[in-house]
Amino acid sequence: MTYCLGIITQEGLVMAADSRTNAGVDNVSTYKKLFDFSLPGDRVVVVCTSGNLSLTQSVISHLEQDLKNQASITLHSLTSMYDLAHYVGQTLRKIHQEHAEWLRKDNVDFSGNLLLGGQIRDEGPQLFLIYNQGNFIHATVETPFLQIGETKYGKPILDRTVSFNTPLNSAAKCALLSLDSTMKSNISVGPPINMVMYRKDSFEIRHRLRLPAGDPYLAKVGQEWAASLRKAFDQMPDLEWEYTN
Amino acid sequence: MTYCLGIITQEGLVMAADSRTNAGVDNVSTYKKLFDFSLPGDRVVVVCTSGNLSLTQSVISHLEQDLKNQASITLHSLTSMYDLAHYVGQTLRKIHQEHAEWLRKDNVDFSGNLLLGGQIRDEGPQLFLIYNQGNFIHATVETPFLQIGETKYGKPILDRTVSFNTPLNSAAKCALLSLDSTMKSNISVGPPINMVMYRKDSFEIRHRLRLPAGDPYLAKVGQEWAASLRKAFDQMPDLEWEYTN
Repeated sequence: MTYCLGIITQEGLVMAADSRTNAGVDNVSTYKKLFDFSLPGDRVVVVCTSGNLSLTQSVISHLEQDLKNQASITLHSLTSMYDLAHYVGQTLRKIHQEHAEWLRKDNVDFSGNLLLGGQIRDEGPQLFLIYNQGNFIHATVETPFLQIGETKYGKPILDRTVSFNTPLNSAAKCALLSLDSTMKSNISVGPPINMVMYRKDSFEIRHRLRLPAGDPYLAKVGQEWAASLRKAFDQMPDLEWEYTN
Repeated sequence: MTYCLGIITQEGLVMAADSRTNAGVDNVSTYKKLFDFSLPGDRVVVVCTSGNLSLTQSVISHLEQDLKNQASITLHSLTSMYDLAHYVGQTLRKIHQEHAEWLRKDNVDFSGNLLLGGQIRDEGPQLFLIYNQGNFIHATVETPFLQIGETKYGKPILDRTVSFNTPLNSAAKCALLSLDSTMKSNISVGPPINMVMYRKDSFEIRHRLRLPAGDPYLAKVGQEWAASLRKAFDQMPDLEWEYTN
């Protein structure tokens, strides 16, 4: 399993991903799921992946090869985030066309979703969720976050604390706590955690974080959040029962 | 969708359920999902249901009819909670045998899960999750809560605040907050909320709660929890980034 999320605010963009991949509980590995394709000064482009590893790795490899081969259409040549989302979706479809039939024969789940976030000159920061079918949606002022993978455990905290007006630092904190909640409830989501925070119009990612398993800061965040939550819980009044006798 | 949960502690038992049922987003209704079959003074028996409504209603009707007809095996005649769980599981299988084939023809999802909690004389309080196949598990000291239906949104708070040693009042508070989190993130889980709190060895439920939509207490709990959570979140230190430049 996987959990990745992106948050877009008036100040910029946060993206975060775990690194645990499993093919059954007896086959657990670590793979990075957050990829930085930025061209500092010109554009910021970050991709997060969830789903079948051979599918998502192939997509990332295709994106990299197109850049290396200086293809006519690449993450650096297109001039809008919308076009980038379309190109990543088309790349995903290409991999499906090549492999999906073979995997269907053995009922292998060959599906994946991607997040694409960033900013290109003359546009504001944008965040897209690209579906397994290659179509996509983008985050908006009303719904400023998008998630892929194991999305439910980490959603309540986002629902309660994040809006488009949230300060960027708080959005980043919330992303980490959302990941922390998910890791606590689903063992197939795990460290290292990779995060980036991007400040609008800087066209360069200046804040990165990689928190490996056992990292003291990650442990501290988890403990402090547990303690804060516990305190908040204790301060809530007891229920007002309707006594029946 | 549905969300029901049960928590067992050293002091007793809490069970809670929402009441929203939907067959598509254009067909939303209210049905109670928490049923009290207690025989005060002798035993406490509470059942919560999730899944296909015709299936779960049939199970409840069978349990009621067996009681009414004074059948040889009923929720009041058996002498252990384990036997009750077995009987409920068998009842579920009976409904499946009668209807499942017909529903399979039209690819209707004919499945459901149940929670069964209570206490019978000479035993401690117990809590069971009865699966769609009629088999079952019970809550233990290590894992004192069981959930059915839309379980993920409400699990992080349970994971962080509930153990077998939690005071019963706190467990009840946590059950309500777990339901509140779920209702906030999934619109197909909704009020009225039904809750019971049972104190061990009293053989009678003395605490009940029904919170309809728009109930001021339910709104207050939601708002206070949002505010407490917000405060806990604000008090968390900002992330310690690895600055790249």
